[in-house]
Amino acid sequence: MRIIIDAMGGDNAPLEIVKGALAGQKRWGVDIVLTGDEDAIRSAMKDCGADEVPRGVEIVGTTETVEMCDDPSTVFRRKKDTSMGVGLTALRDGKGDAFISAGSTGALLTGATLLVKRVRGIRRAAMAPVIPTTTGKAVLIDCGANAECTPEYLVQFAYLGSFYAKRTLGIDNPRVGLLNIGAEDSKGTDLQKETLQWLQKAGAEGHLNFIGNIEAKEAIKGGCDVIVTDGFSGNVMLKSIEGIGSYAGSALKSIFKKNLLTKLAALLVMPGLNDFKSQLDPNKVGGTAFIGISKPVIKAHGSSNAEAIENAILQAKEFAHSGIIDDIEQNIDLMKVEKE
Amino acid sequence: MRIIIDAMGGDNAPLEIVKGALAGQKRWGVDIVLTGDEDAIRSAMKDCGADEVPRGVEIVGTTETVEMCDDPSTVFRRKKDTSMGVGLTALRDGKGDAFISAGSTGALLTGATLLVKRVRGIRRAAMAPVIPTTTGKAVLIDCGANAECTPEYLVQFAYLGSFYAKRTLGIDNPRVGLLNIGAEDSKGTDLQKETLQWLQKAGAEGHLNFIGNIEAKEAIKGGCDVIVTDGFSGNVMLKSIEGIGSYAGSALKSIFKKNLLTKLAALLVMPGLNDFKSQLDPNKVGGTAFIGISKPVIKAHGSSNAEAIENAILQAKEFAHSGIIDDIEQNIDLMKVEKE
Repeated sequence: MRIIIDAMGGDNAPLEIVKGALAGQKRWGVDIVLTGDEDAIRSAMKDCGADEVPRGVEIVGTTETVEMCDDPSTVFRRKKDTSMGVGLTALRDGKGDAFISAGSTGALLTGATLLVKRVRGIRRAAMAPVIPTTTGKAVLIDCGANAECTPEYLVQFAYLGSFYAKRTLGIDNPRVGLLNIGAEDSKGTDLQKETLQWLQKAGAEGHLNFIGNIEAKEAIKGGCDVIVTDGFSGNVMLKSIEGIGSYAGSALKSIFKKNLLTKLAALLVMPGLNDFKSQLDPNKVGGTAFIGISKPVIKAHGSSNAEAIENAILQAKEFAHSGIIDDIEQNIDLMKVEKE
Repeated sequence: MRIIIDAMGGDNAPLEIVKGALAGQKRWGVDIVLTGDEDAIRSAMKDCGADEVPRGVEIVGTTETVEMCDDPSTVFRRKKDTSMGVGLTALRDGKGDAFISAGSTGALLTGATLLVKRVRGIRRAAMAPVIPTTTGKAVLIDCGANAECTPEYLVQFAYLGSFYAKRTLGIDNPRVGLLNIGAEDSKGTDLQKETLQWLQKAGAEGHLNFIGNIEAKEAIKGGCDVIVTDGFSGNVMLKSIEGIGSYAGSALKSIFKKNLLTKLAALLVMPGLNDFKSQLDPNKVGGTAFIGISKPVIKAHGSSNAEAIENAILQAKEFAHSGIIDDIEQNIDLMKVEKE
């Protein structure tokens, strides 16, 4: 297994990316290809104590970087030699099994779509982070790749999310819910109302384990394994979860810092609190898979540190092993929504 | 000040509603009108230790109740003598200064619009809960009344939310943000892109303190005082916050229950934890104001207990005192969005 990593993407590139790549290479037993400025990567390796490029690691030198301010729709035409574009092309050409970048989400999505291509028949690739729930985990699809969606996109997301939950979370027959503002069939906008009918049909025909509309609160309680929604609402949900997670973190910190007794209390519950914190910590998850692309592409958080990259490597390895892309290709006929 | 309360609305009616009404009447020095089944209300009063209807409390007997399964758009035509409809009519007719119900949100919104009417010129009334942020509080408008919105609705919500933040949260010159999936002007759907232009114009002209697009995470960090969005996304945000709040609550509970030492720790930080919990507890807030209606209407949570009703009474009193409806009426010309 060979993982290609954009060494120049994200707020902490290249040092943390390189550090995480070296750690992940050893820990998960994969080969690594780093794309980016060769001097900068070598210098980062030295800072990690590696004077030579380690065995199992390769550098593909590039001269340009996709910046956050670059227009995603034109950057790969304007800049031909970016760490992201070269990495995606290497993935397309079979020089690796998965690609990871902590760079611009928009550019990565556009690049994956243009260079690696979607699975034939898939209308839009989606971002599908795994979020914590009271009883376990759930896949949230889409969470920002497609702000404006059609019922067909959402029906496809339901299948993509279901395969992903099955293959990467190991959930048999994942329960698929349509994110809505109430459980009743009449709730939501036209998008939800029309999507609901298609998903009910897919459920009745036994193609999906569709449980109906679900509110955000019930989803977080563990009411379903796959939360299907448009990229706008999905992003609002994801960012709200992150926001309240950090709100709770700072509230708890100030509670425990109050005086000597509360500081003692903090010591007593520290292991539990750390577990709780890590459930809500994006660095522990690693990244978000782009589902619907014909090869594995993982978006790591822009603020990824070495630990996040290390975890993203495991995630990429598991994604590449999972067989989810085969699932999608073999079931593409089910995902066609034609106006009757 | 006279507050009309639907004694039959919500999961815990009439006992908890009546209990909260009696407590609120004494505590906040207001008169109360209870609408609903007279026998049931009197019996609930007895359970609260009041053999007679207390001074300052009045019962208006009704024979019907709006049920959760009733169609909001027809219920007030089909059922002429409901506790909700009679209460709203009494508000319209000046028999009270505000109305509170824990019953069906959809029916209350429709009833308020049909019976009490919107402020002239307001396209849609919005639900505007106050949510906790890391640095204080923010108004989230809309959060479910209008799943499908136009730019004009959102521009009006910006003004409504701004007046509400100023008048009820006491924030001078409230910072208004447009909820979006990124801060850049190009983010979001057509709805956000068009609304952004109108709000930027209102900001440039000095009518609103508009700070631009804001992500859910930044909003929860306290990045603005008024979060403007459509009812679908707003509901997803609100319910995600509630969901993660209860997730955090149950996670903390299990951390502290682990063993004797962690139970000791719980005792040491109990006051702080209770404060934290109450910040995320809907019963402490009381209810959500419907803004844009020509008189104060407050939706209490469906699961409201007596404490929630007591707090909703204070909220209704403050709303009626605040002058926000005058603000809206006097500034209605600013809120007109005409295609140029």
